[in-house]
Amino acid sequence: MKQETIERIRRFTTDRDWDQFHSPANLAKSIVIEAAELLECFQWSEDEYDEQHVKEELADVLVYCRDLLDRLGLDEDEIVNMKMDMNEKKYPVEKARGTSEKYDRL
Amino acid sequence: MKQETIERIRRFTTDRDWDQFHSPANLAKSIVIEAAELLECFQWSEDEYDEQHVKEELADVLVYCRDLLDRLGLDEDEIVNMKMDMNEKKYPVEKARGTSEKYDRL
Amino acid sequence: MKQETIERIRRFTTDRDWDQFHSPANLAKSIVIEAAELLECFQWSEDEYDEQHVKEELADVLVYCRDLLDRLGLDEDEIVNMKMDMNEKKYPVEKARGTSEKYDRL
Amino acid sequence: MKQETIERIRRFTTDRDWDQFHSPANLAKSIVIEAAELLECFQWSEDEYDEQHVKEELADVLVYCRDLLDRLGLDEDEIVNMKMDMNEKKYPVEKARGTSEKYDRL
Repeated sequence: MKQETIERIRRFTTDRDWDQFHSPANLAKSIVIEAAELLECFQWSEDEYDEQHVKEELADVLVYCRDLLDRLGLDEDEIVNMKMDMNEKKYPVEKARGTSEKYDRL
Repeated sequence: MKQETIERIRRFTTDRDWDQFHSPANLAKSIVIEAAELLECFQWSEDEYDEQHVKEELADVLVYCRDLLDRLGLDEDEIVNMKMDMNEKKYPVEKARGTSEKYDRL
Repeated sequence: MKQETIERIRRFTTDRDWDQFHSPANLAKSIVIEAAELLECFQWSEDEYDEQHVKEELADVLVYCRDLLDRLGLDEDEIVNMKMDMNEKKYPVEKARGTSEKYDRL
Repeated sequence: MKQETIERIRRFTTDRDWDQFHSPANLAKSIVIEAAELLECFQWSEDEYDEQHVKEELADVLVYCRDLLDRLGLDEDEIVNMKMDMNEKKYPVEKARGTSEKYDRL
């Protein structure tokens, strides 16, 4: 995300004095609430969906993720790379290729 | 997210031949599943949580969001700014300041 | 649910002194966490799923729903019938038949 | 749930010819979507919530759980008791009393 987009999200919150509501727990709830709204785009069909609606709900998830990164003072690239280190070990290419099995069943 | 982190996520998927599983619907399911694991960090307490665990689960949400952006050919800044335009209209500063009411009750 | 099953769920909680954790908010979090574990059975395929796993996760959702009914002193049949009254009005047979459109688009 | 409530839920679906949409996967998605709407009642506050709204959303979760039980031909008491057997073993009273730790950390 570009720095100016990040700043816009921050300003949106501080302008409304909403930092008081943005506890980590409340933001975690918000992320799952928006993620479920995203899923609603695919509730009755996997294939027919309203792309504009998908964009809006995915954006909502991303905004709350950004809020949580900010609240906890986390660097997105740092935590994603830390987790990718873990994922690459849990799912070695030779075992995981072409299968959707969970790591504990590989 | 830095370009090299984005590339790492893409390579993780293609190396394992997992694009076949990454339909938009499956990725939407995955985002909500990981978001619920993030919420689990706060299941019984809002205040005491394992920050390392939070980082890992938030990273999982971000990785699947990135997968969905990629799958649909979306630009993160574009959809977030589009949604922020909407949010700023739905929640005018003078009405929304200091309250957590939903827009339809402001 | 049979009365003896309901009693068993209650006893499970009181024997462990877990009522202190069962605030309505924590139970709502728990329901969504278990619902996402249920969804995980269908994460990568709509058709191939482990029925035993589905049973276990659905049971978890039902147990936490029962806990929440208990915590709020609600009668399951009463709230379900109240909601069915609403659903039947929102989705009149002649308009809703055979379509998965949401009520506000019928 | 009383038999007549169960019958009402079934009739609601068949009258609208909605069985075609009620695949196990779609019902699992629906349960998590409604569970997240229930959680939304507690999004910004654990303590102040609209009880009528909670009732409606909890009822929605229960209705979709009933639909899934029906779809898979499951008996609610049977699967709940099967899971309670497992829970009682995973969380022995002497170890679990008064703590919200997960079973793998007891």
